[in-house]
Amino acid sequence: MTIGDHLRKLGVDSWLIGKTHMKADAEGMERLGISRDSVIGARVSECGFDIYERDDGLWAEGPSGFYDNKRSPYNEFLKSKGCEGENPWRDYANAADDGGDMASGWFMRHASKPANIAEEDSETPYLTSRIIDFLEESKDKGPWLCHASFIKPHWPYIVPAPYHNMYGHNQIQPVVRHSSERDNPHPVYAQFQNNAIGQAFSRDEVLETVIPAYMGLIKQCDDQLGRLLEYMERAGRMEDTMIVLTSDHGDYMGDHWLGEKDLFHQPSVKVPLIIYDPDEAANGTRGTVVDALVEAIDLAPTFVEASGGVVADNILEGRALTPFLHGKQNINWREFAISEYDYSATPMCANLNLEPREARLFMVADERYTFMHAEGGFRPMLFDRQEDPDEFFDLGESEAHTAVIAEMYDRLARWGRRMSQRTTISDVEIESRRGGAEEVGIFIGVFDESEVDTKYTASLTGPSKKRPNNET
Amino acid sequence: MTIGDHLRKLGVDSWLIGKTHMKADAEGMERLGISRDSVIGARVSECGFDIYERDDGLWAEGPSGFYDNKRSPYNEFLKSKGCEGENPWRDYANAADDGGDMASGWFMRHASKPANIAEEDSETPYLTSRIIDFLEESKDKGPWLCHASFIKPHWPYIVPAPYHNMYGHNQIQPVVRHSSERDNPHPVYAQFQNNAIGQAFSRDEVLETVIPAYMGLIKQCDDQLGRLLEYMERAGRMEDTMIVLTSDHGDYMGDHWLGEKDLFHQPSVKVPLIIYDPDEAANGTRGTVVDALVEAIDLAPTFVEASGGVVADNILEGRALTPFLHGKQNINWREFAISEYDYSATPMCANLNLEPREARLFMVADERYTFMHAEGGFRPMLFDRQEDPDEFFDLGESEAHTAVIAEMYDRLARWGRRMSQRTTISDVEIESRRGGAEEVGIFIGVFDESEVDTKYTASLTGPSKKRPNNET
Repeated sequence: MTIGDHLRKLGVDSWLIGKTHMKADAEGMERLGISRDSVIGARVSECGFDIYERDDGLWAEGPSGFYDNKRSPYNEFLKSKGCEGENPWRDYANAADDGGDMASGWFMRHASKPANIAEEDSETPYLTSRIIDFLEESKDKGPWLCHASFIKPHWPYIVPAPYHNMYGHNQIQPVVRHSSERDNPHPVYAQFQNNAIGQAFSRDEVLETVIPAYMGLIKQCDDQLGRLLEYMERAGRMEDTMIVLTSDHGDYMGDHWLGEKDLFHQPSVKVPLIIYDPDEAANGTRGTVVDALVEAIDLAPTFVEASGGVVADNILEGRALTPFLHGKQNINWREFAISEYDYSATPMCANLNLEPREARLFMVADERYTFMHAEGGFRPMLFDRQEDPDEFFDLGESEAHTAVIAEMYDRLARWGRRMSQRTTISDVEIESRRGGAEEVGIFIGVFDESEVDTKYTASLTGPSKKRPNNET
Repeated sequence: MTIGDHLRKLGVDSWLIGKTHMKADAEGMERLGISRDSVIGARVSECGFDIYERDDGLWAEGPSGFYDNKRSPYNEFLKSKGCEGENPWRDYANAADDGGDMASGWFMRHASKPANIAEEDSETPYLTSRIIDFLEESKDKGPWLCHASFIKPHWPYIVPAPYHNMYGHNQIQPVVRHSSERDNPHPVYAQFQNNAIGQAFSRDEVLETVIPAYMGLIKQCDDQLGRLLEYMERAGRMEDTMIVLTSDHGDYMGDHWLGEKDLFHQPSVKVPLIIYDPDEAANGTRGTVVDALVEAIDLAPTFVEASGGVVADNILEGRALTPFLHGKQNINWREFAISEYDYSATPMCANLNLEPREARLFMVADERYTFMHAEGGFRPMLFDRQEDPDEFFDLGESEAHTAVIAEMYDRLARWGRRMSQRTTISDVEIESRRGGAEEVGIFIGVFDESEVDTKYTASLTGPSKKRPNNET
């Protein structure tokens, strides 16, 4: 069940614009006879969304062909603008012109150069235009959800002028790392420190080149969001549209000697979440900040409630954020948040001599501690964010924290026992099914007819039926 | 993915004859556009089987109508034999003729009376005939699996002559129960002791009436299995057919002050499992007994291997029993078995003031101990089957067993973290995906072109592309 399935039941369409890095289960669809050409099949192929414009933004090509077998609407757009070749995403939007030479954004030393493209034709403004197109087309239609998903900031790290040199290396935040982190690190952490990404992002030269470009990419998003919000204000959409800004993960950018997103330190897991709720019930909370442990899985239930529905909480594990938006007091909220990571398809799994299914990580984080369990027989990791807000000192082997670690394992176990089998029947339906067996003629544990009301026994008493004559 | 889905990939059909107490997810099928009238939809509606003859054998009727909205092929058979009325299952096969009065099998005091039906027309012989019909029709067809599922022994507890009085109350095994079990029982256990079933099966009169009939029902199964095996020998099917005899659960029949199947004592969870494997590799193990902790979930993988397939162990949690059948030594087998139970739809859930999702039980059993965790904040149950083979003394509060209980919780937690997300991609596929990113043009963590083989950088270097003239 996808977000689209939950919302369509409530008469709300679900649209996708931009990136959503999901691949359809072709074998499963074939098994169930679901064709991609059907409306249902198209939705199943696209995480349950209807597609306004999907562009996953990774149009890499090598000797074995394209990384992604779909085709990019953005590339078609660039071609329509006169860009040459089959892959202007690669050759223009993600490369600089370095005095006549192509300087590909795939190689981070070029990150500070301007992408070889007019700013308004680069990925973020392009997608923003498509979002505005969607809003314009939808303005007289019924309610909708739109998953508008920017591609950048993301590698290849490159941004067009004027964003490429809007920030200097003297403006980047100090890297959050400590020499102690390289001293006896957890074996999984060690792998990520020592892979190509970790090694690259441990070099100051890399950070000084990449981070200003990354900041430029973020600033470009900010500006484009400004453009979008301006449109929405003009069009009257701010009165009837809930807006949620969030991200699927952060980027270490050198913090903890890492790049990318592969572990559970704050730079990776603590993603932005800004919610604008036009409901006047939210007036009292505008501009306020909530510190509760919310998770991305809380968004689907939030949208269900915002659409006037009842959350199918036998399916959806998250919880609607409505009480926070409406300023409810004393909300009985979760005590810990969970995150999972599967690195089985990486060389780190092989380096650690793990089976693919052992290459899985689980985070349990509460308001004070971040704990990580790694399958495969490793010790856990533990950070006390109160005493060590930068998460430099791994307490996974600390005798003094045995009880904290046990509590974290207990929480992980509790989560592991969460209800995941009864997805087709709600609690309400379960409750309505209780009792009433005798109404459909079922009597279990009844020795004598007299134990049961005669209205139920009428058809089970009286003259015996006559055996057929033709009986053998 | 059902057993049928796994086997059909291997060219093996999967057929159902008899009972399988499963209800299709109508809403899910509608959402995915799967019609029951299609072959795929019919299979989805029937646990992945093709139906030779499904008869769930619970054709109860009350003031609100039938318990089961399907219709019984067995009832049609009885009508064709001249039985009167719409529900001869109820009126003949599950009732006695008590001197002209109907004595319904729903009321256990009648269990010792003979069902008002010729033995060969009763449920077990009828289904056996249908299984033989299937075998006869399939003898020139490709390989198949047949889930041949008898309805009885089951309530209504009643059996035709001569089985109804083949056993006397002096032949029943002593009931396995102890007064200490009623002293401070686990709250969930207490509920099951005290419901109508537990109360009935705590009465000697009930046991003395029901158990001889139950024994008769088992003896009838034995005889019908004999008939089936005789047919198979005559037809040459013993040379090419693996036969597995098992059950979905046992019946307490008064043991531990319980009836039915609702907890995890041995009478409930230790089901029969007899496997006949015609493969000559199994010659060395014929007639032998294996004490390993095998589970019903091991059968699907066993059938996949017997069909020459490779077990999709990213989907199937069980393990093929082939090594046991083939007499392999030093098999590295599981240390514990798991069982789950959901009693949310029962009054016991309400009596305990639990939310439906708290009405769930988990068993962890190893070679020595049986442990039960109940959601809802209860203490666990623990039995030491070595010291207490009858499971009379619940050690769930024993200080001396803190470590055992902790180990059981640890195992349950490990099970809770089992791989359940990556069902579409096998380990082999995961391994094949490792590395090779540069083959499709992906470079992460690369600062300088020189770090990469030139064959990968060719399309990313050279003259820069010319910007279009029509650029804004």
